[in-house]
Formats: sequence, C-alpha cells, structure tokens
Amino acid sequence: MQRLNASEAGFADAFDALVNGRREADADVSSVVTQTIRDVRARGDVTLAEMTQRFDGFDLNAAGWQIDAAQCKAAYEALAPDLRDALTLAAKRIEAYHKAQLPENRDYRDADNVRLGARWSAVDAAGVYVPGGRAAYPSSVLMNAIPAKVAGVERIVMVTPTPGGETNQAVMAAAYLAGVDEIWRVGGAQAIAALAYGTERIRAVDVITGPGNAWVAEAKRQLYGVVGIDMVAGPSEILVVADAKNDPEWIAADLLSQAEHDPTSQSILFTDDAGFADAVAKAVDAQIASLATGAVARQSWDDFGAIVLVDDLEGAMPLVNRLAGEHLELAVDDDRAERLFDLVRHAGSVFLGRMTPEAIGDYVAGPNHVLPTGRRARFASGLSVLDFMKRTSFIALDKAAINAIGPAAATLADAEGLPAHAASVRKRL
Amino acid sequence: MQRLNASEAGFADAFDALVNGRREADADVSSVVTQTIRDVRARGDVTLAEMTQRFDGFDLNAAGWQIDAAQCKAAYEALAPDLRDALTLAAKRIEAYHKAQLPENRDYRDADNVRLGARWSAVDAAGVYVPGGRAAYPSSVLMNAIPAKVAGVERIVMVTPTPGGETNQAVMAAAYLAGVDEIWRVGGAQAIAALAYGTERIRAVDVITGPGNAWVAEAKRQLYGVVGIDMVAGPSEILVVADAKNDPEWIAADLLSQAEHDPTSQSILFTDDAGFADAVAKAVDAQIASLATGAVARQSWDDFGAIVLVDDLEGAMPLVNRLAGEHLELAVDDDRAERLFDLVRHAGSVFLGRMTPEAIGDYVAGPNHVLPTGRRARFASGLSVLDFMKRTSFIALDKAAINAIGPAAATLADAEGLPAHAASVRKRL
Repeated sequence: MQRLNASEAGFADAFDALVNGRREADADVSSVVTQTIRDVRARGDVTLAEMTQRFDGFDLNAAGWQIDAAQCKAAYEALAPDLRDALTLAAKRIEAYHKAQLPENRDYRDADNVRLGARWSAVDAAGVYVPGGRAAYPSSVLMNAIPAKVAGVERIVMVTPTPGGETNQAVMAAAYLAGVDEIWRVGGAQAIAALAYGTERIRAVDVITGPGNAWVAEAKRQLYGVVGIDMVAGPSEILVVADAKNDPEWIAADLLSQAEHDPTSQSILFTDDAGFADAVAKAVDAQIASLATGAVARQSWDDFGAIVLVDDLEGAMPLVNRLAGEHLELAVDDDRAERLFDLVRHAGSVFLGRMTPEAIGDYVAGPNHVLPTGRRARFASGLSVLDFMKRTSFIALDKAAINAIGPAAATLADAEGLPAHAASVRKRL
Repeated sequence: MQRLNASEAGFADAFDALVNGRREADADVSSVVTQTIRDVRARGDVTLAEMTQRFDGFDLNAAGWQIDAAQCKAAYEALAPDLRDALTLAAKRIEAYHKAQLPENRDYRDADNVRLGARWSAVDAAGVYVPGGRAAYPSSVLMNAIPAKVAGVERIVMVTPTPGGETNQAVMAAAYLAGVDEIWRVGGAQAIAALAYGTERIRAVDVITGPGNAWVAEAKRQLYGVVGIDMVAGPSEILVVADAKNDPEWIAADLLSQAEHDPTSQSILFTDDAGFADAVAKAVDAQIASLATGAVARQSWDDFGAIVLVDDLEGAMPLVNRLAGEHLELAVDDDRAERLFDLVRHAGSVFLGRMTPEAIGDYVAGPNHVLPTGRRARFASGLSVLDFMKRTSFIALDKAAINAIGPAAATLADAEGLPAHAASVRKRL
C-alpha cells in the first residue's frame, strides 16, 4: 500500500502514476483467440467438444451438452432456505430497479408537421457468459440475465464451463430464478465464438455479456460488431472518501471487500485525517490476518492499495474524478455526501453515507454490479436494459412537410455531390 | 441486380445468400494499424507530422496543425446563401431532435427506504473523425458534433485530413455551425490513436465517433475500451417496401440514392407486383445513365442490388427483419405504413409513407444519419446523445434499510466465498 499526501511536494507526479498505473496483464492472447474463433466458425460443435475435452477434461457428447431446466429448478429448491431467500430477494430487487430503466418511445410532430420519433425494442437473443471455478458467482448470473429478461429478450442463453464435468448448483439455481432459457456447458473464447456465429447445436445470439478471463474478454473484443457486447472489463476497484467520524474497522472492511476479489483489484482511501488513515491501515492489516481470502487481499493491498491524505474532502473530488472509479463510497454525513456527490463527474456507482457499504450493491440493492473499470467510467456506464435493446428512429412526411424541408435537403445533396439523393427529394416536391 | 421470387422453389437458399453475403472488404489492415497506434504512443506529434507528410503531402509544422475558429466562421459566411440556409436549417432540426433524446435522472426511495437512482453526465471530451476527399460531408460533421454538443460535452475535437494541404470549406462551415472547439489537420489511424492517447499537442478525448476508411475503422475497433466509440460501421444499405401505387421513378431514385454512395452499398426493393418491379428496374437503368455518380451506382446496383417479389407486403416483413437494414422505406399508404411498421423488429431508421425519401433523413429531418449497417440493427442503434454520456448509479441506505436488506447480502457473500464482503455489511448491522 502506498501513502500519498496531497500537500507534499511531488504529489502531482505520484498521483499521475497512480492514475496511469496499469493493472491489466499484457497477456498476448490475441492470436490464439483469433485462431479459436476461426476454428469454431469452420468446424462448429466438433471444435467445442475437442476444446472442452482438452480444457475441462470431459466428453460433452457423453455427459450432455446442456444443463436442462429441471436440473436448475431442482438446484434452486435444494438451496439452504436462507440462501434461497437471499437470492430471491436479490432477484426481485434487481428486477425492480431495471424495470424502472425501460426507455420510453417517442412519437411527435414538430412545427413543420414532420412526424418524428424512436421506438425501442429488445434484441432477439442474448448470451450470458458465466465463468467456471472460483469466479462462478450466482449474483453475476442475476445481474446479467435479469436485465435481458426485463428488456424483453425472448431467448437468453447461458454458456459456462463445467470443469471435470462438475456443475455449480448455486449458478444453476440463479439461472432458474433469472429465467435463463438455455445453458450450454462450454466456456472460453470458443463459447463466445459459438454464441456469435452459431454452431450446429447452438443458435447465434445478438448480444453477449458477462465476465470472463483474458481469453473470453479478448474474444468479446474481437467479435464486437459481429454481435453487441457489454464492455471491455478490467480488474475492479473501489475509491472510499471518508472523514474521521467513521469507524476505521468498517472502512477497512470496505477496502478489503474489493481487495479480496483479485490480486489486481485496487482499493484507495481518500481522507482528510492522518490519524484516521493510520487507524484504517492498522485495521486492514488486522482483518487480513483472519480472512479466508487474506492472501489475495494482501497482494492486492500491497501492490495496488493506496491511502491519499487530502486537506479537505471536497478537494479530493477532482482526484476521484481523474480515477473515474468503478465503485465510489462517500462515507460522510448524509448532507455532506450529497454535496460531494454533486462534485462527482465520473464514477460507475456511488455509495452514499456511512451505512452503504459497496457490497450491498454487489448483491441486493438493485442497480447492476457490472460496472466500468479501469477509468472507463469516463465514457461507459454499468450494464442496463439498454444493453439488450436498440432504438429505431422514424420519419414521416406529408406533401406539405416535404415541401417545407425538402428543398434544403436537395441543396445539401447537391453540395455533397450526390445527385440521386437530390433527385429522390425533388421528384416529390 | 438479382431478382428473387418468394414463391419460387429455392427462394429460401437464395435469400439466405443475400442475408449472409459479405460486402465488407477483408483487407488485412489490422497489423498496420497496430503498428501505427504503437508509433503514435511512442513518438506522438513526430509520427503525426511524418505520416501527414507521407499520406497527405504537406508539412504540418509549416502549414499549421490546426484550422482555427476564425477560418471556420469565414467559411460559413462565404457559403452561397441557399447552402448556408440549408445547413443552418439542418443544424437546427438535428439539434431539436437530439435535445428531445436527453435522458432523465432518477432518484427514488423504495419500499425498504433504500434510496436508488442514476445520474447521467456528459463525457469531458469527444473526438469527431471527418474523412478527407470525396467523402468529406458537412452533413456528417453536423450529425456527429451536434449530439455531442447537446449532450453537454465541453470539448469537441475534430480531426480531418487535408490532402495536399487543401481545406474543405463546407466542412469548416459545418464545424462552425456545430460548435466544434478544435480542428486538427490529421487523418487516418494515426489521428484516432492521437485522440485516444493524446500527444504533445492534442489532448486525449473520451469518445471517438465519425466515419472513416478501413484503417480508421480498424483503429477505432482496436482502441475500443481505451476510449468509447460509436460503432463498427460497414457499407450502407436501403430496403424499400413498395406497392404498385408508387411512381416507379421515385422508387428508382430512392434505390439509387443509396447505390451512389459506394460500390459496396446495397439497395433492395420488396414489392408484391411484378409489373411494378419491372418498371422500377427500367427506371433505375434510365436514371443511372444521366447521373454524375452513375458509375458507382451502376456497380453497386449490379453487384448488390436486388428486387424481391413477395405475395404480399406483410409477408415481406420477416425478410426485412432478417436483413435488419440501416434504412427502411415503407412506401405505401399511411395507414398501411403504420401497420407494416408494427411488424418491424430490426431496422436503423424507418421512413414512413410515400412522401418520405431516405435522403430527407440524411440531411434535414433531425434523427441521426449515423446508423447501424450490415445487419447490426439487430443489436445496435443510431448515434445519439447517449453515445456522449454515461450513467452513474447510486445507492444510499440508512440504519433501517441496511438492517432490512443487509443480512441477505451477507448470506450471498458467504455463499460466494467472499468474507470481507460479508464483514463490511455485518459490521454495520
């Protein structure tokens, strides 16, 4: 963990280094992924079966390609009651928040009697990637599939690797709750290629979302344009802006809730009180010792953690905006949180006040936990129903309307050297 | 031009071929673009100057890197009055349509007294690419820059090659009208790299939009994630659904207004009347002969044009949806256009009725003319203010709210093996 002090000489350079520091691996997976995509396009399910045998160690043709709906329902019903209730509460709250996101169509006539508008509609089919192994989170199934369902997508297809043929009960339960229509037991770049182009068994989808390793991310990036994708995701991060009135134990836990995700996660505290900074640093060290995820959290905190001491918290906000973090906690009194929030220009999701730890947003609050990372909140938003919808604009003119605005269109077409454009208008005047 | 008949044997295969036919060149520009991006990152303006000398044949350091605001204003004032009026009308109408797109913030409390919402904000800076030479369209400057301006972007940066050092007066006039803040005389993949990473002279932007050649498109694709981009664009297309009550001359002009853009453009007519189909085909041939753009239109129409004869126009709509075209004209009586529009699932922009030629949408109607091509209307939308904005979700809990939903979050964190997540919630209960 590094400590920075905004009033010391050299701070600007040190903070620049923090902003520009790369946490993403430069793994050269590009050419491997290109070849995988080519193979899946050429040989379809044969390639999927071969790669699944090689990487997940089981035979798709023997074990079955799909996990069926009955298995998912059974998994849901077999959950411990408190976990089932928690998952159900999460699903309901996520559904409610995303329903409120549904965009409105527009249809109006302007002063020239030109009818204009836009209609929103869902994509036909969405693919959701769910990683296997340790990162197979049921919450992630809900956060990706429920917005698609709310958007009105008629076919939601999940792909997930099942290493050794082992299925993940919590993931299957979440798929049941979220209304996933198909689950295919394939993973990696080959699963993304199958969703994008289709194979003999798997019909192509229109949009692919969901987290994955470097190969999955690269496949999505390469296939962007063939299908829609949610975003390019990197290691996640939390920024906490906190005054000395917080319990340092709470803030330490918040920083660690990010650090425990991955060794490349980043947790940064901004505070105006050196004593509080010390107390949090001490609490982090103490809590790490007893965490089951302590080794990961330790590495993340040591390599990428930071505590930035500022003169006042308002002065921290330009720094916060430069980092454009995925998660931003404003752990101050409610009225001050509001004032600080008004200074936020770039952040994926903001957690206001002392009683709103980031983990609430990971699970049950309702807003999506798929958020822009690596300073991408400068231009990107969290996953929403809009990622599964598209807008069709429309125009309708009558004789009076084309006589009103048509001549200008023809003049512009002439100026651009496009005579057929001009003719298509002038013939109607 | 090929003719298909939906009631003849073999139609399904022939239509599949039409849907899957590739019009995009497979030019392998990827590695060249990767190297260009690397060069611009390493040597910044030196690379820009060298490449401009090589490709555009002039010395940026001698001729000046920028086109200043006074030059743009002068270009606007020097326009022929009818062109200036047409451009101004277009700008006003585009601005009005895009203003109506501005999204609303949300801020509410749910039944558990959890405060939830989302705030929209503009990106800090947007880059607009404007091609040089024949495809330097002033309408394109308006369509890209005005939505950014309406979104609230404070810095709009245009990059455009000026081959031989020659500036394009109409483009400069449009930049003045649209409120572009900076214009740099650089083009190609190197201009995109400069916008994404910044150089000594050019500060980086957050989103890059605008059309370009294969190198520009590939640079945008490779830099997606470093910056936001509008979309992956391919050759454009028009689908016209028309009954026999149309003037074949009008419909022929509409088909040609797409064909004259580029040899890879595509124009497809769906009609239920064989005689009308013949009349349109004849009118196309006749009109091409007298078009200044006839050679391009001829190649497009010969290679990619099609007339599809269907039993009834309603039956054409599933075919139309499979093609998911950039532009769709429904050239029928108004009430029938409405009914056909209700059957549209995928289209970039729809032009309703006999008096709405597509060219109206290219210039003056108001909706954006930057639209998804190559079947991407299945998942993508036209350019809008949303491309220059991002959404920050927020959550605020009080003591009662965290007691209501916190336990479920902790239960889920336990199940996912993330103890610091659980602790950050439980400490507050």
